[in-house]
Amino acid sequence: MTAPSLTGANLIAGEDWTGGDRTSFAAVNPRTGEPAGPLFWEASDDDVRAAAAAAETAWESTRSMVHTEHAGLLEQIAAELERAGDEIVARADQETAIGSNRLAGELTRTIGQLLMHAAWVRTGEHLEATIDLPDSALNPPRPDLRRLLVPLGPVAVFGASNFPLAFGVAGGDTASALAAGCPVIAKAHPAHPATCELVGRAIARAITQADLPPGTFSLLQGKESRVGGSLVRDPALSAVGFTGSLAGGRALYDLAAARTRPIPVYAEMGSINPVVISDKAIAERGNQVASALANSLLLGTGQFCTSPGLLFVPTGPAGDAFVDQVATELASAEPGYLLTTDALRGLTARLATTRRHPDVKVLHEGPQTAGPGLRHPIIMLTVPAAALAHDSDLLEEHFGPASLVVRYADHNELASALRRIQGSLTFTMHVSNEEAPAFADIAETMVARVGRLVWNGYPTGVAVTAAMQHGGPYPATTSSLHTSVGTTAVRRFQRPVAFQDAPQDVLPLALKDGNPLAIARRINGHITST
Amino acid sequence: MTAPSLTGANLIAGEDWTGGDRTSFAAVNPRTGEPAGPLFWEASDDDVRAAAAAAETAWESTRSMVHTEHAGLLEQIAAELERAGDEIVARADQETAIGSNRLAGELTRTIGQLLMHAAWVRTGEHLEATIDLPDSALNPPRPDLRRLLVPLGPVAVFGASNFPLAFGVAGGDTASALAAGCPVIAKAHPAHPATCELVGRAIARAITQADLPPGTFSLLQGKESRVGGSLVRDPALSAVGFTGSLAGGRALYDLAAARTRPIPVYAEMGSINPVVISDKAIAERGNQVASALANSLLLGTGQFCTSPGLLFVPTGPAGDAFVDQVATELASAEPGYLLTTDALRGLTARLATTRRHPDVKVLHEGPQTAGPGLRHPIIMLTVPAAALAHDSDLLEEHFGPASLVVRYADHNELASALRRIQGSLTFTMHVSNEEAPAFADIAETMVARVGRLVWNGYPTGVAVTAAMQHGGPYPATTSSLHTSVGTTAVRRFQRPVAFQDAPQDVLPLALKDGNPLAIARRINGHITST
Repeated sequence: MTAPSLTGANLIAGEDWTGGDRTSFAAVNPRTGEPAGPLFWEASDDDVRAAAAAAETAWESTRSMVHTEHAGLLEQIAAELERAGDEIVARADQETAIGSNRLAGELTRTIGQLLMHAAWVRTGEHLEATIDLPDSALNPPRPDLRRLLVPLGPVAVFGASNFPLAFGVAGGDTASALAAGCPVIAKAHPAHPATCELVGRAIARAITQADLPPGTFSLLQGKESRVGGSLVRDPALSAVGFTGSLAGGRALYDLAAARTRPIPVYAEMGSINPVVISDKAIAERGNQVASALANSLLLGTGQFCTSPGLLFVPTGPAGDAFVDQVATELASAEPGYLLTTDALRGLTARLATTRRHPDVKVLHEGPQTAGPGLRHPIIMLTVPAAALAHDSDLLEEHFGPASLVVRYADHNELASALRRIQGSLTFTMHVSNEEAPAFADIAETMVARVGRLVWNGYPTGVAVTAAMQHGGPYPATTSSLHTSVGTTAVRRFQRPVAFQDAPQDVLPLALKDGNPLAIARRINGHITST
Repeated sequence: MTAPSLTGANLIAGEDWTGGDRTSFAAVNPRTGEPAGPLFWEASDDDVRAAAAAAETAWESTRSMVHTEHAGLLEQIAAELERAGDEIVARADQETAIGSNRLAGELTRTIGQLLMHAAWVRTGEHLEATIDLPDSALNPPRPDLRRLLVPLGPVAVFGASNFPLAFGVAGGDTASALAAGCPVIAKAHPAHPATCELVGRAIARAITQADLPPGTFSLLQGKESRVGGSLVRDPALSAVGFTGSLAGGRALYDLAAARTRPIPVYAEMGSINPVVISDKAIAERGNQVASALANSLLLGTGQFCTSPGLLFVPTGPAGDAFVDQVATELASAEPGYLLTTDALRGLTARLATTRRHPDVKVLHEGPQTAGPGLRHPIIMLTVPAAALAHDSDLLEEHFGPASLVVRYADHNELASALRRIQGSLTFTMHVSNEEAPAFADIAETMVARVGRLVWNGYPTGVAVTAAMQHGGPYPATTSSLHTSVGTTAVRRFQRPVAFQDAPQDVLPLALKDGNPLAIARRINGHITST
């Protein structure tokens, strides 16, 4: 199965590192449960150190480059991904069983995201250039002060299992770190190492073509948590981007916080994504919502970070009929594949706990899946809203094709159940237009608990745009101050520096008199491009 | 000494909490080493819980207020501080021995800072309102997405010993947290509890006048680290602002990181603030720089966070003469008071270590101070730059009237010594105009290590303005992404929330069609006020 372009190597500053005392591992094909491709060399601690040292050296030059060079690299990576697209999609499908159509769409999204960051960086607005001209009339006199955002330093990126491309080696975290001017060391996901290698090679080619230092990017392979741990502990690292489980994200957060020099960890983790539907919305368009919701639930076999995990449905006959229809839609669906054996094991264990709860009933459970591969029956459970008051276990995510329907008797019961929700990426409401104001208190409650509120839609779509917020209070993320999707994701990897009374010829171009880069700057409080 | 307006109480949501099983403590007058005022009641764990619960309740309403109400509170606090100014300054002088003149100036700065944040909040720009209008031509179609920054939640503020007002109970951290719309629980500094009480009462009066929930502000007294620890661990807290020692800031950071829900800690801590002078600058204006530098060194008895702790002077006769002149200036100065017995003990211990270093020599040491009070002789030490290569102890701060002169033989030796510097708030260069480009490599090295670079000036002045950066890489702060001084300090206490396809009548005013608040917003990528 080894394509000639795959070596199973760690890619460190443009070079293949293989063999020696490294151990090796293979990915699993979710469709068969068998090895999905060649062997990959587990990165040694020396490999980690070499990648970190190369990143540190690269950073010495990339950090003072003008931002258009950072944009140019993103554009080059987009072009390389486009060229290698067919091979990447085919390999990703082997390793993830996500399906070529969705993966092709995800590749388009990944390329679009790189180009969006490039376009944003080209405006120079991400530098937040600010100039306060001197004022000797003040007491004390104000000096000449000029401030901009500079790259934070080398960034470790841990991609997700569920979006091998858009949240992978060239995904949002890598795109935004490179956009900021930071070198990246990506830890390949052990569930799709070949996909990571192909994407990593595309990035390495782009770096060569852009004539940037090779240490600007490295890729480390590994199934052991040791590899990621060594990377996060390395003194050269300045930040971490992560998408994955709560346990994984928290472990990296704890390691980073325990460093001599602590560094920020932007981990996007578990999310329950509650959805509420009202009686009036059921009356108006229950059929349509039930069908679209079932579809949203099953996207990626229920393994989207924004998968609607908790459905609040009113008690009574209309609610019963709505729930029945969702169950019918689910019954007609074919179960997809779980991404990893860990995901299958985790879902099985979580469901066992939930099912033991005395108030939980099964509404629908698909047939046991026959044959090989990582599959789990589609399942829908239900519980009365009152049960949430004394059991926070019910508020935890089921990662996979499982959903919990919560039945609420009235607005107060709904509101009080929602106040029990922990931090989440999204919250969705299906309400009729005239009801929206009556649900304003609930929206207000949830503003404090989630990153994005959706009206009359489905949380699974995440537009890549300036106004997107993909994040939320813990445990949705470890840092609710930022987003991992959209232009402002770049801000995670920048820090401010001020120049006081600096001579013109040593100032960064973005801060020089005359605005040679022609970017928008805040001068004495007002934004201007002159 | 107890003035009628002081009760020694914990101020919890507008009420005095005293007595019971609380223990008490008194501040120390640095001029005498004797108690400086009345007894204060150490906050109990119940007090901490009560303040946190009140803050949580207050937040339920303050977080959805329109931002102009947050601005109004800041203006009201400024007015109350103005009214209570004479009493505050007199009391602060008793507790800190900083001197009434400097304290009056600091009060003006504190009031100005509150008003600056109010003015910034009134623009609404701090909300970063962003609207991406729907686009059904895209694939997938883009929904209507609107994003703004919302208050993070209740904030704990730990003020500094060295700026009892500007970095105190109504200082930059409180001002920026309230500006963001977050309730504040201030931990009073045990070195100036009466000052904290007076300032806290002024804030409480302002809250009453602004008709905001009383839990918007509480003040907790305490000498034991238990009080701050309980506060930072309380589940209701969402962020921490701190100014003080590395040990104190790191302890709070570690507590916050170990919480079930970790929260950000913005700790501004130790800083060495290196200053370089070149041979040419000495030739041009050595006398003037020596005199101004000695003055900068002694500001606040060397206890400014931006105090120039490490002076790089060229070897050779011109450098010798320059150093002699600084020493002469220091010899003619009267030593001021240390702020606390801990500061005096800490400086004595640090100096003992530094003086044991075989390469360190004493250039100037003032006479032993006679009489009572917390004083330490002014001292200037010297070491060759080469010694820094193998002893990082020499790069640690001496908090107080002590400075270390580092002699460098040439540009390379200077550059390599500077690469050993840890994160610092500032870096200062005195160079002649024609030399500036030759020092560009050094400036570039230091951009990666500090928050502010100063040319031909002194780091001790920190202008309160949009372009200020008061922060820097660890150990200067625990979060180099932000500043604690200047308008953007507000951003530390905000997080983004997106509204997708929200009906107009439930949208926050800042995001409604027609821009009812008339604020600058980014619509489809372009900033507009319409």
